[in-house]
Formats: sequence, C-alpha cells, structure tokens
Amino acid sequence: YSGYSSRTKFYTLFFIEASLRSIGDICFCSNPFSGLLILIGMLISCPKVAFLASLNLFAGILTAVLFLKIPLNEVRSGGVTFNNYLAGTVVALIADEDVLFKSPDIIVVSMVMGILTVIIWMGLNGLTASRLEFPLLNAPFHVMLVLYLLSGMASIYKPEDVFQIQGISESPLALNTSLGDEQMNNITRSFNLQETETNLIETTTTLPSALNLRDESLSPLVVEQSVDWEKVLCGIFLAPSQVFGTGNLMTSLLVYIGIFVYSPIMLMQSLTGATIGCLIGVGLSSSLEYEAVYSGSWAYNPLFTSAALGGFFLIFDVRSWLLSIVGSIVTTLTYSAMYKCNAPVLGIPFMVITWLLLPGIPAPEDAFQQDTQKF
Amino acid sequence: YSGYSSRTKFYTLFFIEASLRSIGDICFCSNPFSGLLILIGMLISCPKVAFLASLNLFAGILTAVLFLKIPLNEVRSGGVTFNNYLAGTVVALIADEDVLFKSPDIIVVSMVMGILTVIIWMGLNGLTASRLEFPLLNAPFHVMLVLYLLSGMASIYKPEDVFQIQGISESPLALNTSLGDEQMNNITRSFNLQETETNLIETTTTLPSALNLRDESLSPLVVEQSVDWEKVLCGIFLAPSQVFGTGNLMTSLLVYIGIFVYSPIMLMQSLTGATIGCLIGVGLSSSLEYEAVYSGSWAYNPLFTSAALGGFFLIFDVRSWLLSIVGSIVTTLTYSAMYKCNAPVLGIPFMVITWLLLPGIPAPEDAFQQDTQKF
Amino acid sequence: YSGYSSRTKFYTLFFIEASLRSIGDICFCSNPFSGLLILIGMLISCPKVAFLASLNLFAGILTAVLFLKIPLNEVRSGGVTFNNYLAGTVVALIADEDVLFKSPDIIVVSMVMGILTVIIWMGLNGLTASRLEFPLLNAPFHVMLVLYLLSGMASIYKPEDVFQIQGISESPLALNTSLGDEQMNNITRSFNLQETETNLIETTTTLPSALNLRDESLSPLVVEQSVDWEKVLCGIFLAPSQVFGTGNLMTSLLVYIGIFVYSPIMLMQSLTGATIGCLIGVGLSSSLEYEAVYSGSWAYNPLFTSAALGGFFLIFDVRSWLLSIVGSIVTTLTYSAMYKCNAPVLGIPFMVITWLLLPGIPAPEDAFQQDTQKF
Repeated sequence: YSGYSSRTKFYTLFFIEASLRSIGDICFCSNPFSGLLILIGMLISCPKVAFLASLNLFAGILTAVLFLKIPLNEVRSGGVTFNNYLAGTVVALIADEDVLFKSPDIIVVSMVMGILTVIIWMGLNGLTASRLEFPLLNAPFHVMLVLYLLSGMASIYKPEDVFQIQGISESPLALNTSLGDEQMNNITRSFNLQETETNLIETTTTLPSALNLRDESLSPLVVEQSVDWEKVLCGIFLAPSQVFGTGNLMTSLLVYIGIFVYSPIMLMQSLTGATIGCLIGVGLSSSLEYEAVYSGSWAYNPLFTSAALGGFFLIFDVRSWLLSIVGSIVTTLTYSAMYKCNAPVLGIPFMVITWLLLPGIPAPEDAFQQDTQKF
Repeated sequence: YSGYSSRTKFYTLFFIEASLRSIGDICFCSNPFSGLLILIGMLISCPKVAFLASLNLFAGILTAVLFLKIPLNEVRSGGVTFNNYLAGTVVALIADEDVLFKSPDIIVVSMVMGILTVIIWMGLNGLTASRLEFPLLNAPFHVMLVLYLLSGMASIYKPEDVFQIQGISESPLALNTSLGDEQMNNITRSFNLQETETNLIETTTTLPSALNLRDESLSPLVVEQSVDWEKVLCGIFLAPSQVFGTGNLMTSLLVYIGIFVYSPIMLMQSLTGATIGCLIGVGLSSSLEYEAVYSGSWAYNPLFTSAALGGFFLIFDVRSWLLSIVGSIVTTLTYSAMYKCNAPVLGIPFMVITWLLLPGIPAPEDAFQQDTQKF
Repeated sequence: YSGYSSRTKFYTLFFIEASLRSIGDICFCSNPFSGLLILIGMLISCPKVAFLASLNLFAGILTAVLFLKIPLNEVRSGGVTFNNYLAGTVVALIADEDVLFKSPDIIVVSMVMGILTVIIWMGLNGLTASRLEFPLLNAPFHVMLVLYLLSGMASIYKPEDVFQIQGISESPLALNTSLGDEQMNNITRSFNLQETETNLIETTTTLPSALNLRDESLSPLVVEQSVDWEKVLCGIFLAPSQVFGTGNLMTSLLVYIGIFVYSPIMLMQSLTGATIGCLIGVGLSSSLEYEAVYSGSWAYNPLFTSAALGGFFLIFDVRSWLLSIVGSIVTTLTYSAMYKCNAPVLGIPFMVITWLLLPGIPAPEDAFQQDTQKF
C-alpha cells in the first residue's frame, strides 16, 4: 500500500513538474517556477483558456508516457509537450467566448488535439533531432494549428466567424457585427485572422463605382494618426500576452517576471527583441495600422528570436548578441510580409528565422549540439 | 541467334514485370499480380487513360535503364517508375475526353513527361535516400503534376477549361458549359480543380447588388441535405478509383483485391484509413459538399497514409496501428485544408503527413531503414 | 610605415578581387575579369544601380571579414557575397528612378541589407553545406528579396507603386499612370510584379456589367499577334541583362563575353538554356504575352540551370548535358507556373530545380562534393 502511495506521489509530482516546465518552456524557461508564474498570469486574465490548454497538455503528457514510451526525464523537461499548451491556448482563444457552455464537446476536441500534437512532435523530432541536428522549436504547434484553422475545424466552434477564420470575407454584414466585439477583434488580430476588413475594401475598390461609393462612406474613418510612443512602449510590455492570446498587461508582466527568474540575460534579450519589433512595426505600418503595434502583435515574434539566438541556443557574447539583433530585424520583416499577405502568422516568423540563422555560428557548434540534445 | 532470342525474352519479361510492379507500387503492392488486377480495372473503365499512362511508364523505364543506368533490379521492383504511371494517368484524365483524336501530339507529351518524371525521381531520390533517409513516396509525381497544371501545359489539351485548371474563374459562361459535363466534373473534383464555382459565388457576394441577384437564382439549388450513409459507405469503396481518376466501382474493387493479394493486413489498413477519411469528411463538409465524400475524394489520401504507416514502412503492431489512425486523421485534416484553400490536392496530404509521422517511431528504426533501402 | 602601407595594399587588392569575383560568381564565373566585364556592362546601362549594388557588396564583405570572421580565402572566392551584389541590384531596380536624390537614406538601407544578406548566407550555408551537402546557390538573395518585397519595405522607395509591388491591384488609376512609364514596366515585368494588369481584368470580368464595359475599352488593344522570331532571338541574347534588371543588349553581350572568358563550354550551356526557355515561353504564352519572351524574362532562369548542371557543378559530358537540357525544360515550366500565379519569380525556378536535379547524378559524386566545398 505504501509502495502504491509513493508511486502515486511520484507520478503526481512528475505530472505537476512536467506541466509547469512545459508552460515555462514556451518562453524558453524550462523552470517550474517560471511556468507557475505564467499559469497564474493566465488564470487571472482568462481562466477558461487556461483550463482548455491544461486539458490538451494533460492528454499530451499521458500519451507521451503511456503510448509513446518517451523516457520520463525527457517528458519532465517540458520540451516534449510545450507545444500542447500552446496549441490548447490558441484553440481556446479562437473558439467562442462561451463555447464551454454552448458546445461542451470542445473538451473532447482539446484532448484529441493533445494526442495529435504530441504525436506530430514525435514524428518531426525524429526528423530534425537525429538527421538535421537542429531544434524543432514550436513546429508541431504550427502544423496542428494551421490544419485546425484551414481544415474548417476552427469554424465549428465559432460559426459566425467562419470566413474570417479562413481568411475570406463573405459578406459585409458578418464584418459589421464582429467589429463591435472588441475582445474578438483582439484575438483575431493577434493571429492575423482579421485582415478581412482590408480585403473587403481592396476587392471593392477595383470597381470604379464601388470606389466612389466607398470613398465617401470611409472618409470619416480615415483620419491620419501620428505615432503615440507611450502606446508603443505599452506594446513592448504587452508582447508576451499576445502569445497567450490576451491583451492583459498583468499577464504580460508575470511572464516577464517568469523569464527574469529563469535568467536576467534572457529577459534583457526578450525586451530587446520586442523593442526592435515595435520600432520596425511603426516604420512599416500605415497610420491606420498602429493598433497592431500598440497591442504587441509585432513584438512577440522578435522577442522569441532574440531570446533563442542570444541566450538559449547560443552562449551570450558579442557575436550572438549581434546575431540576435539581426534575427529580430529579419523576424519582424517576415512578420510584416505574412501580415500583409493575410497569412496565419502565429509564431512562424520566429521559427523560420531561428532555423535559418542558428546554424550560421560556426564556433560554439558543440555548445549548440548539447543544447539541441537537451532540447 | 539463340542468344539474341534469349536476351529479347529476358528484356520482354523484365519490361512486363517492371511495368506491372510499378502499377502495383502505386498502392504499395510491389507485386506483378496486384499490378495486373489494377491494370485490368483501368482497362475496363478508361482504356484511353491506361494507354497514355502506359506510354509514360514505357518512356520512364527506358530512360531509367538506358540513359540513367539505374541497376535492373532496382527498376524491376517498380519503385523507380510508379510515379510515371501516376503522372501519365492524371495527365490523361485532365485532358479532353477525345484528346487522342483531336491532338495526337499528347502521345509525344506523355512520353516526354515520362522522361522528365523519372529524371526528377533520380534527383529527389539522391536527396532523400542518402541524406535524409526517408522514402520519396510520390513526390516526383507531385512536382511534375503541379508544374503541368500551373505552367499552362494542362490547358493546351483542355482549352475550354483553362481557368478552371489554373484555379481561376474567368467567366460565368465557361462555368455553365462545364457544369453539364458530369464526367469532367468528376475528374476536376477529384483533383480539386473545380472549386471555381464556389470561388465565383464568394467573389460576387462581396458586392451587395450581386449578392441579391445571386441569392434568388441560387436559392432553388441550395437545399439542406442530410447525410446519406449508404453513399458514404460507397465513398469508402470508391476511394482507390479516385487515384486512377475514374468513379468506377469495378475498378475500385479490383484495386482492393490487388491489395488483398499482396497482404490482407494492408487491405484492412487501407479500409480503415478510407473510413476515417469519409467520416471526418462528413463532419467538416457543409450539407452542399457531401458529394465529394460520396465520390471517395476524402478517402484516398488517408487510405494511403494508413497503409504506409501501419503495414508498409512499419511492422504492423499496436503502436503502428495507433500511429496509422492518427496519421489518417491528420491526413484528412490536411486534405480539408487544401480543399478549402482551392489548392491542387493530388496525393500531397498523404505524402506530407507520412513524411512527418514516419520518423517518429523510434524502436523499429532498423526495419524502417531496410524498407527505405528497398524502397 | 612600409608595413602599414603593404597591409593597406593587401586589403585594397583583396577587396577589389573579392568584389569582382562576387559579381562574376552571379553567372558562375568566379573570375575577376568576368566580374569586371559585367560591372562595366552595368556601369554603361545603369550606373546608379551599380553604385547601390556595390554599397551592398561592400557592407557584405566588411561584415564577412570583420564580424563573421569568415576566412579571407573563402571571402575572396566570391561565393560568400555574390548574393549581396544581386540583392543590391534588385533593391536599386525596384526603387524609384531618382530615389538617390529623393531619399538618400536608401544608401543606409543598401548597406544594412548587405549586412543582413551576408548573415543569412552564413545561417543557410551552415545548414546546407555541412548537413545536406548541396550548394546554397542564391537562396540568401531570395530570402532577403522576398522579405523586402512583401514586408512593405520596397514600397517605401516606390510609393506610387505600392500595390503593384505587393502583387495587389489597388486602383485602375495607379495602373494607368504606370503604363506610360516603359522603363518601370521593364523592371517590374522581369520580377513578375507587373501582373496587376491581368489581375484587374480577371477581377472585373467576374461581373457581367464590368465585363461589358471593359470589353469595349480593351478591344482595340487585344489584337492577335503572331510570333516574331527575330525578337525571340533577341530575347535569348537579352537574358543575362534581365538578371541585372536592364533591358540593355550591350550589358547582355558583355555578360556573355564574361562567361566566354571563364569557359566557352559554360557559354554554350548558357545559350542552350536561354534558347530552351524562349522556345517554351512562346509555346506557353498567349499571343498577348510574347513581350515577356522578347525581353528575355523566360530565358534567364533556364540559362542558369543549364550552366549549373552542365558545366559548373557536374563535369560536362553526354549525361550531364542531357540533364542540363531536362533541367532547362523543367525550370521553364516552373517559371511559367510562378509567372501565371503572380508570384515573385526572381531566380527561384533556377534555384529549386537545380537543388532538385543535382543530387540525381550518382557517378561523379566526389567531383560534386569537391565543387560544393569550393562553392
């Protein structure tokens, strides 16, 4: 009986540690305390999202241990399942506000997606770890989420937003109703699903008659705005909250504290990346698009690139510091390109540019390989 | 004289065996008898397609042996040239019904494409086999067909369908004429080239006036339909015929018999994959799109993924069985995403998801590498 | 003092040699004299472009030597920085005619892009050279330019052309003004940015009323034209000038002479590839699109593929000659596909098809690996 009890205790502790490290690993902080701070931040601003994301994570850890037989130590580090928490978060964010009450089957969907995400992790990891020798980053999350968005699953839990999610504007009516809902706007903006508004205007302006009609009706809205630098500063601090889909400053600060607990250098690098993102965002936005900069959307991708290149995968020194700055610039350009093409952005700019620049440092190759194996 | 005769006999037998194994290898059945059953199935339903595909295959085998000097044993196994038969089939299917009489130069095109396909096979195989250690699957076919479709070659042999093939709706007139032709509809649907109809409606509905106009004229067609489960079952059995571009049940059954002859486990896996595809297809289709499920379009990709993961590349056991189910689900989601984005689908979902999941099984790695080498 | 002087002399000569070899390496001629001929060709037809491209190259060589500590011999060969000269050329070409006077900050942009391009080279080279063992070709240039075009940076220096550059037609007015400017037309056509005209027509023709309106206004322009074979021949000779963005025959001939100086076989291969490109271009163009063939746009991609496969990376023999012909055909089909999809083409068809076919030759594998290391 005591043996049974100690095994229960072991697995409970294992499960808690693996979960918290997974949450922390999203921000490169494989540290239970950092994970706890981030979790608290999410519970403050969006408990329902945190609940659904935890279900996804729970299913993922169970699958990794029971079905995939991944060694416990590897699962405990959080590297196997941090994609699950990310995927669960975004799935919950995309769904309707009160989807938990309207369609309780989203609980089943969350858990099934947890199983799929961790199996995709296993497949991709087999490819990158042993053959290409570079870290997988959040590729399984991207595969799963792009499929979820484009396959039509996302629209099941957000019926009135079907065409926005798929990046297609269906009717001006659908748009108008959604414009009132600020919360939803926030969510869709952060994943670049909201571009329909611009789309609609572009489509109609190709017709001279529609153009004239529009010009009059739109003119009161189209007012030149100058940059509000206080809000830009705000955008830098809001960057991490974009990853977890809330525009909540408290959540953001808790994430930054979590990063600081893990490593002050990582915090400095994260803030540098976010600042570069916001500044380039101001430069490449028209005066009507500054909102995206203020919300931190332009900042979360370079934040991650900067942390990955200048602290996590490479030892921090002058060279890796310069590389992380270049990485942040190129990541922001990639964000801008995807944003302007109406593609679902997620964390793809960070992932692609980190893959692209990481193999370039020739000297500390050994350090990198060690990190990769750990990762 | 006798030596000459025996060499002739040897090459004739070699050529017949390589051809039949190539045809069988499309369904993972590197077995002359399976290939013969599939060939008979095609001769029953679409002899002209089988003729043009065989020309492509003939040119491919000749190129592989004479110009590329690939060892005879490798060519005989069918792995080198099964992409040729696939490419020949789809090129013939996309062309006009009576293209053989209208433009006999399609015979030359078929043979030139045979040469190109096998050379692309050689290039890609050099990359994946020796460097990445994963099977090439039908990538050469996809490269060749996507180029054929998008470069404008396809439209030469189907002039009135130019813009459908390129995924662009040109005029409502072109559409109406094509709607009458059910056979062509079948073909274009299976390669997802027919999405123009939906496109057109989406485009026009962004304009209120066009919307009103359309709503009236379309309303008689837009009738809510419930799922007809008998037809869904039919879709499961029609799945293989979609690969060979015919909606013929007889062809499909002969393909299934060919798979059974090769391995009963492979047949079970194929049917499981096709079933998962059809069920998810019903879940993600609107009531107007069930036809695609009934025709088997949703089923042929998961069919292949299931067979590849749970029998061909991995030894069949509980773990690979579960992996094949997960693979079928993710493949169907990929199919749905590509279908809804109006991308040319072909077998791309199967290929991508198999690449993605196959390296994930860590234990029978040796078995996999052996299979790869054989492949 | 004398030691200082000899170091200055050494670095001056090093810098000149690295620059000229970089310029030559764009056409696979790592030879200072070939580079000098190409530079003279550019100074004749577009000195401002040559000036901005040289700034980019200068910043790139400095970064490679001082910051990245790449061995001097590797930088001298030109393989590290030829992407810089290409990127600088295209950035200058896309900008306004008199951007140097209007926005002198393009000088800073050119140099920053030089730093970014060479760092992207280092990252990608780490991936391909040591892990995948294939040459990088002009991938860093493509990454940088696609980001520059799509992120909105390009439009800063060509404000009136914003939507053309992004591949989106905004208003018919913007289009009409640009139609008068033949020089700009030339530039945008070569990078496939000009497709807006066709786009516009396609969009409007989905509406019957707009269709009728257009048909009348467009009809005087839509005159069936037959192929002018002299102009096609001209297109073959103009091909290299497309790479450097001018439609100048003198520049083209100097490039061809530069290639001849490096190797007569390479010149023969280049002309073969360009000829194949133009012939297929005529076959796949409608009668209204022959201009693109005459300007050499269809020819520069197969030119490079042919030179790469049949002389530079593989020793010239019957087999590699046949491979270079197949490569030229497939490259032209890829060009056609991207052109008809309105994608930014640049040199992507050449790059992708060379990657795809190069690993296919099994015999002279050693020779290829040597070339790769040198490259």
